[in-house]
Amino acid sequence: MMGAVLLSEFATEIVVPVCAVIGIAFSLVQWLLVSRVKLNPERHASGNSNKNGYSDYLIEEEEGLNDPSVVTKCADIQSAISEGATSFLFTEYQYVGIFMVAFAILIFLFLGSVEGFSSKSQPCTYDKEKTCKPALATAIFSTISFLLGAITSVLSGFLGMKIATYANARTTLEARKGVGKAFIVAFRSGAVMGFLLAANGLLVLFVAINLFKLYYGDDWEGLFEAITGYGLGGSSMALFGRVGGGIYTKAADVGADLVGKVERNIPEDDPRNPAVIADNVGDNVGDIAGMGSDLFGSYAESSCAALVVASISSFGINHEFTAMLYPLLISSVGILVCLITTLFATDFFEIKAVKEIEPALKKQLIISTVLMTVGIAIVTWVGVPSSFTIYNFGDQKVVKNWQLFLCVGVGLWAGLIIGFVTEYYTSNAYSPVQDVADSCRTGAATNVIFGLALGYKSVIIPIFAIAICIFVSFSFAAMYGIAVAALGMLSTIATGLAIDAYGPISDNAGGIAEMAGMSHHIRERTDALDAAGNTTAAIGKGFAIGSAALVSLALFGAFVSQAAISTVDVLTPKVFIGLIVGAMLPYWFSAMTMKSVGSAALKMVEEVRRQFNTIPGLMEGRAKPDYATCVKISTDASIKEMIPPGALVMLTPLIVGTFFGVETLAGVLAGALVSGVQIAISASNTGGAWDNAKKYIEAGASEHARTLGPKGSDPHKAAVIGDTVGDPLKDTSGPSLNILIKLMAVESLVFAPFFATHGGLLFKIF
Amino acid sequence: MMGAVLLSEFATEIVVPVCAVIGIAFSLVQWLLVSRVKLNPERHASGNSNKNGYSDYLIEEEEGLNDPSVVTKCADIQSAISEGATSFLFTEYQYVGIFMVAFAILIFLFLGSVEGFSSKSQPCTYDKEKTCKPALATAIFSTISFLLGAITSVLSGFLGMKIATYANARTTLEARKGVGKAFIVAFRSGAVMGFLLAANGLLVLFVAINLFKLYYGDDWEGLFEAITGYGLGGSSMALFGRVGGGIYTKAADVGADLVGKVERNIPEDDPRNPAVIADNVGDNVGDIAGMGSDLFGSYAESSCAALVVASISSFGINHEFTAMLYPLLISSVGILVCLITTLFATDFFEIKAVKEIEPALKKQLIISTVLMTVGIAIVTWVGVPSSFTIYNFGDQKVVKNWQLFLCVGVGLWAGLIIGFVTEYYTSNAYSPVQDVADSCRTGAATNVIFGLALGYKSVIIPIFAIAICIFVSFSFAAMYGIAVAALGMLSTIATGLAIDAYGPISDNAGGIAEMAGMSHHIRERTDALDAAGNTTAAIGKGFAIGSAALVSLALFGAFVSQAAISTVDVLTPKVFIGLIVGAMLPYWFSAMTMKSVGSAALKMVEEVRRQFNTIPGLMEGRAKPDYATCVKISTDASIKEMIPPGALVMLTPLIVGTFFGVETLAGVLAGALVSGVQIAISASNTGGAWDNAKKYIEAGASEHARTLGPKGSDPHKAAVIGDTVGDPLKDTSGPSLNILIKLMAVESLVFAPFFATHGGLLFKIF
Repeated sequence: MMGAVLLSEFATEIVVPVCAVIGIAFSLVQWLLVSRVKLNPERHASGNSNKNGYSDYLIEEEEGLNDPSVVTKCADIQSAISEGATSFLFTEYQYVGIFMVAFAILIFLFLGSVEGFSSKSQPCTYDKEKTCKPALATAIFSTISFLLGAITSVLSGFLGMKIATYANARTTLEARKGVGKAFIVAFRSGAVMGFLLAANGLLVLFVAINLFKLYYGDDWEGLFEAITGYGLGGSSMALFGRVGGGIYTKAADVGADLVGKVERNIPEDDPRNPAVIADNVGDNVGDIAGMGSDLFGSYAESSCAALVVASISSFGINHEFTAMLYPLLISSVGILVCLITTLFATDFFEIKAVKEIEPALKKQLIISTVLMTVGIAIVTWVGVPSSFTIYNFGDQKVVKNWQLFLCVGVGLWAGLIIGFVTEYYTSNAYSPVQDVADSCRTGAATNVIFGLALGYKSVIIPIFAIAICIFVSFSFAAMYGIAVAALGMLSTIATGLAIDAYGPISDNAGGIAEMAGMSHHIRERTDALDAAGNTTAAIGKGFAIGSAALVSLALFGAFVSQAAISTVDVLTPKVFIGLIVGAMLPYWFSAMTMKSVGSAALKMVEEVRRQFNTIPGLMEGRAKPDYATCVKISTDASIKEMIPPGALVMLTPLIVGTFFGVETLAGVLAGALVSGVQIAISASNTGGAWDNAKKYIEAGASEHARTLGPKGSDPHKAAVIGDTVGDPLKDTSGPSLNILIKLMAVESLVFAPFFATHGGLLFKIF
Repeated sequence: MMGAVLLSEFATEIVVPVCAVIGIAFSLVQWLLVSRVKLNPERHASGNSNKNGYSDYLIEEEEGLNDPSVVTKCADIQSAISEGATSFLFTEYQYVGIFMVAFAILIFLFLGSVEGFSSKSQPCTYDKEKTCKPALATAIFSTISFLLGAITSVLSGFLGMKIATYANARTTLEARKGVGKAFIVAFRSGAVMGFLLAANGLLVLFVAINLFKLYYGDDWEGLFEAITGYGLGGSSMALFGRVGGGIYTKAADVGADLVGKVERNIPEDDPRNPAVIADNVGDNVGDIAGMGSDLFGSYAESSCAALVVASISSFGINHEFTAMLYPLLISSVGILVCLITTLFATDFFEIKAVKEIEPALKKQLIISTVLMTVGIAIVTWVGVPSSFTIYNFGDQKVVKNWQLFLCVGVGLWAGLIIGFVTEYYTSNAYSPVQDVADSCRTGAATNVIFGLALGYKSVIIPIFAIAICIFVSFSFAAMYGIAVAALGMLSTIATGLAIDAYGPISDNAGGIAEMAGMSHHIRERTDALDAAGNTTAAIGKGFAIGSAALVSLALFGAFVSQAAISTVDVLTPKVFIGLIVGAMLPYWFSAMTMKSVGSAALKMVEEVRRQFNTIPGLMEGRAKPDYATCVKISTDASIKEMIPPGALVMLTPLIVGTFFGVETLAGVLAGALVSGVQIAISASNTGGAWDNAKKYIEAGASEHARTLGPKGSDPHKAAVIGDTVGDPLKDTSGPSLNILIKLMAVESLVFAPFFATHGGLLFKIF
C-alpha cells in the first residue's frame, strides 16, 4: 500500500545541499553586482563611469551631483550607519550570548533530568519494541542544535544588516541615474539577504541531521526530537532581534520625529537632527536584522515541527529518508523558484518609471507563487509515496500524496491572499487608507479612531484564509499538514525577504540623500521607492504573522504529541484557564513593548531637545549634532527594555508546564495563538495605514490628497500624530507577537519530555 | 446521602417574590425622596424652602441662585433632555420591536422543526424513562420567555433613563445646598434604577417559572430549557441598547467636542454648542439605558444558565424545588443586602466634602461584598442539600454545599478585585493615569501610545481573577459552578447599578448647571461628583465585562450540554477553526462600532460647523442653536449603524451552527469569549484613563498636574485628543463586546436542540 518513492535516498542527499549551495552562490553573485556601484570618489571623479557598469547618467549633471564630495559624504554617512548598527548588534549579542549559554545549560539540565541523567538506552515511546537513545543524548543533542539554530539566526540577521548598510548609499548614488537603477540595487541587496538566509538555514539543518544521524542511527524518534532545538535556537534569537531591534528603531524614530518634525519643523532625516543616525541605524537593526531572524525562526520551526511529526509517522517508522526530508526538499525547490523569480525583477524586465515599482514587486509575489505551485507538485510526486500514514494524536491517519500537495499548496496560496489583503489595507492606492487620510480633516482623534478600526477590520480575510488553510491541511494530514502548509507559505521566503529588505534599504537611501544634501530629485526617487517599500513591508509582516500562526499551531500539535496527551478539551478547568490566560499574554507583552518604546522615546526626546538647546548653531546647520549619544540612548534602552518581555515569553511555558502541567500549557499556547495573531495583524496594518495616509497627504498625487495637504497643514499634522502612534504598533509590538506565539510553542515542544514527566507540580501537591 | 433542604418549597415560593417586592418598594421610596426636590419655581419662589425637605442653604445667596428663572431654566433643559431621550428610545423600540417579532418567529420555527412540529410527547433526553413535553411546546414557551425577557429588558432601560432624566436637574439644584445634598439625590436616583431592575428581573423570572410549571408539571428539563429564552430576550435587547445607545452618545459627544472644544474653544456643555442637548441625551440612552439592559441581560442569562444545568442535575431529577431556585434565592438575598448597603451611603453617614465622595462609593462596594458573603453562606446553608450531584458533560459530579458556597463567593470577590484594579488603572489618584497625563508633554502621539499600553496592562490582574474564579467554580461544580459564580458577581447588582447610574446623572447635572448659566461654584461641585462618577463608571464596566465572561462560559457549558457533545477538543480542525475565527469576531465587531461612531461624529461635526457658520449671533450667545437637528442626526445614525454589528452577532451562531455544526460553534464561542474579554477590558480602561488624565490636568490639584496645565496648554490639548479617541472605545465598542460574547452564547443555547438535530449541513453534504 505504501508505494515507493521516486527520488532515491542518495539523490536526496545530493539535491538538498546542491540547492542550498546554488542559493548561496546566487546571493554572492547579487552581492558582486551591488558592489560594482563604487563608493570611491577618486575613481568616480576620474569620470570613467563605465567602470560602474553603467554608461549613462539619466539625470543631467545638476547641482554638482557628480561632485566627489557628495559621494564621499554618502560613503561617510553609510559608514556611520553601518558602524552604529554593528556596534548595537555586538552589544546585543553580548547579552544574547550570556542568555544563550544559560539557556543551553537549562535545556541540558531539564531534558537530562527526564531519566535522571541515565546514559542507558530505553524502549522507544511510540515503537515499544525498539530501543531508543537515552534522554541524556536528547539533552546533549538538543542543546547542540539549540546553539546551532541560535548561531545561524544571529548570522542571518547580522549578514542581512551588513548587506543592507552596504547597499543604502549605493542605492542613493544609483538614484542619480534613474529610479530603475536604484530599484535594482536595492532589490538585489534584498535578494542577497533573502537567499543567504534561506540557503544557510537549509544547509545547516541538513548538515545537522546528517551528523546527528551518525550517532542516532535508526533511532529517528530521538534524532528529530533533538533537532527541534534548532527551531528553539532560531526563535529565541529572533525574540531579541525583534524586540530589541524594534525598541531601538522606534525609540529613535519617534524621538527624532517628535522633536524634529513636530517641534522644530525640520524635515525627516535632516542632518541637523541629533537622532537621525540612530533612526537610520534602527531601520537596519529592526526591520532588517529583526525581520530576518524572525522569518528564519519560522522556517526553522516549521521544518522541525514537520520533521518531528514525520519521525513518528510511516516515514519515520519505515525509515524512508527521502520522504522524511520532504520539508527540506520543498525549501530546496523554493530556492530555485525564487532564483528564477528574482531574474524577472532584475534582468527580464526593466523598471523605467515610478509607477512600475509596486506592480513589479507584486508580480514577484505572483510569479513565485505560481512557479512554486508547480515545484510543490513535482517534489510531492517524486519525494513521497502515493500513500502513507501520519501520526494523529494517538493513531495513524492514511494520507495520499495529492492530499499532501494540497496541504502545502493551500499554505502557499493563503500567504498570497494575506499579502494582497495587507496591500489593500495599507497601500494608499485604495480607499481604506484614503478614508483614514480623509478623517484627518477633523483632527488626530478621528484619525486614530479610523486607523484602529481599519486595523481591526483588516484581520477578517486573513483569519478566514488561515482558517481555511488550517481546516484543509489539518483534515488531510493532521499536524503534519499544518507544518507543511506553513512551509508552503514560507517556501518563497527568499523572494519575500528580498521584497521586504528592499523597503528599509530604500528608506535609508532617502535618508542618506537628505543628509548628504543631494538634490530633491534624488529624494523624490528614493521616496517613491520607499512608499512602495512601506506596502511591501506590511506584506512581509503579513507573511510573517500568517506563517507564525501556522507554525505555532504545528509546534503546538507536535508538543501535544510529545507530551502524550490526546485531547485538549476546552471543557476542563485546567485547559480553559490556560486558554483565557494565554489569550491575555499578547496584551501583557504588547503593553510592555509599547511602554518600552514610549519610555525610550521620551529619553530620546529629552536628549534631542537638550542638543538643540545647548549646541550653538545647530539649527542653523553651522554645528554638528552629537549623533553618538543618541545612538547610545537607543542601544541602552533597547537592551534594558527587552529583558522583561523576553522573560515573559521564555518563562511562561517553563512556569506553566512545571507547575500546572501540559494540559494548562496546551491551553495557554492555543489561547496565545488565537488571540495574538489578531493583535499582530491589526497592529501592523494600522501602523502601515497611518504611515501611508501621511505619505498620501504629503505626496498630494490626487485631487483629494491635495485638499488635505500640503505638509504642515492641520490634516497633515493629524496624520503625523497617527503615524507616530503607529510606529511602535507596526514595528515593535505587532511583529514581536509572532515571536511570542512561536517561541512559547517551540519551547514547550523542546521541554515536552520534561513536562510530561515532572510537570504539573501544583496539582500533584494538592 | 443527598440530605434534606432546610427551606421548604412553600417558604421559597414566599421568600423570592417578597424580596422582589421589597426591592420595588424600596426603589419607589427612593424615588419619592428624590421627587421632594421641586422643579416648580413658583412654590420655590415663595421662599418656603422647608417644603423641599431641607431647611438650610449652604451656599450664601449669590448671583441670583434662588432666582426662579434659574429653576425654570433647569426644568426646561431637563425636559428637553428627557424628551430627546424618550423620543430616541421610542424610535429605537420601533425597530427593535420589528426585530423582536421577527426573531420570535424564527425561534418558534427553528425549535418547532426539531421534531417536525409534532405535538406528541417524547422520551426525555437525559432521563429516558420519563416522558417529556414535545419540542413544539419548547418552541412556544421559548418564544414566550424570549418576549418576556425582551420586554423586561426594554422596561429596565427605559425606567432607568426616565429616573435619570428626572434626577439630573434636581441634582443641579441640590448642588446649591452643598455637595453632600447633591450626592444624595444623584445616588438615590441611581438606586431607584438599580433596585427596580434587580427586583423586576427577579420577579418576572419567578412568575414565568411558576406559570410555565402549570403546563410542564414534572418535566423540568423542558421547563428550564424554555426559560433560557428569557436570557436571550434580555440580551438581544441589550445589544441594541448598548450598540445603538453607544453610537448615539459618542457621535454626539465626539461631534460636540471636536467643534466646540477644539475649533471654537468654548467649554464643554456650553449652551451655544448645537450638539449639547444630543450629548446629554446620549449619556442617558447610552450609559444608563444601555448599561441597564446589559446588566439585566447578564443577570437573566446567568440565572438561566444555572437553572438549565440544575434541571438535569440532582435538583431537577429529584424535583427539589428550593434547591432548583437557588439562583433566584441568591438574587433575593442580594436585594436585601444592597438595601442595607444603600442606607450606609444615604442615611447612616453624610458626605460633607468633595474628597469623601470616592471613598463613600468604594465603601459601598466593600460593604455590599462583605454582607453578601454572609448572605450567600445563609442561602447555601438553608437552600441546598449538604451534598448533591451536578451534571458534568455526560456524568454526574458530587458537590458539597460548602463547595457551592465557595463557587458563589469566589465570583463575588473576583468582582470586587476587578473593581479595585479598574479603579487603580482609571482613577487619577494613582500613578498609571498620572503617567499617561505626563506623557502628554510630548504630544498626543505619546499620550495615545501610553494609553493603549495602560489598557493592555490593565487586563492582567482581572484575567487572573477570572481564571482563578473559573478554576475554583469549574473544579467544584462544573458549569453550574461557573453560572452561580457569575450570579455571585452580579448579586450586588442593585448597588453596582446605583453607583454606576450616579455617574451619568452627575455628568448631566453639570451640563445643566453650565447651560442654565449657574455659578461656577455649582459647576465645581457637579464636576467633583462627575470625576468620581468616571471612575465608578469604569468599575461598573469592569463588573459588566467580568460577569459577562463568566456568564458566557456558563452559557457555553449549558449549550454544550444541550447539544450533547462531551468534549470540545482544540486538536480537531472543526473546533480549531472555530476558535480562531471566534477570536477574530470581537475585532470585526469593534471595527464596525468604532467606524460607526467615527462616521456619525463626522456628520455631527459638519452640522455643528454649519450652524456656527450660518446662524448669526450664535457664538455671541444672541441666537439659539438648532438642537433638534443634532438630536435627529444622532438618532438616525445610531439606528442605521447598529444594524450591521447587530446582524454580525445575531447571525453568526445561526450560520455557524446550521452549516458547520455544534463543534465549530463551540470553538467560535470559546474563541470569542477569551479574545473579547481582553479587548473589552482594555478598551474600557484605556478610555477611562484618557478621560481622567484630561480631568487630572484640568483640575490641577497637584504640583505635577499644574506643570501640565492649565486648560488650553499643549499637554491639555494632547489630553483632549486622547479623551476623544477613548470615547468610542470606552462607551461603544468596549462595552458592546460584553453583549457580543454573551448573546452569541445564549443564542447558541436556545438553538442548541435545532443545531444538534439539523446542524452541520456543510459537513453532511461533503
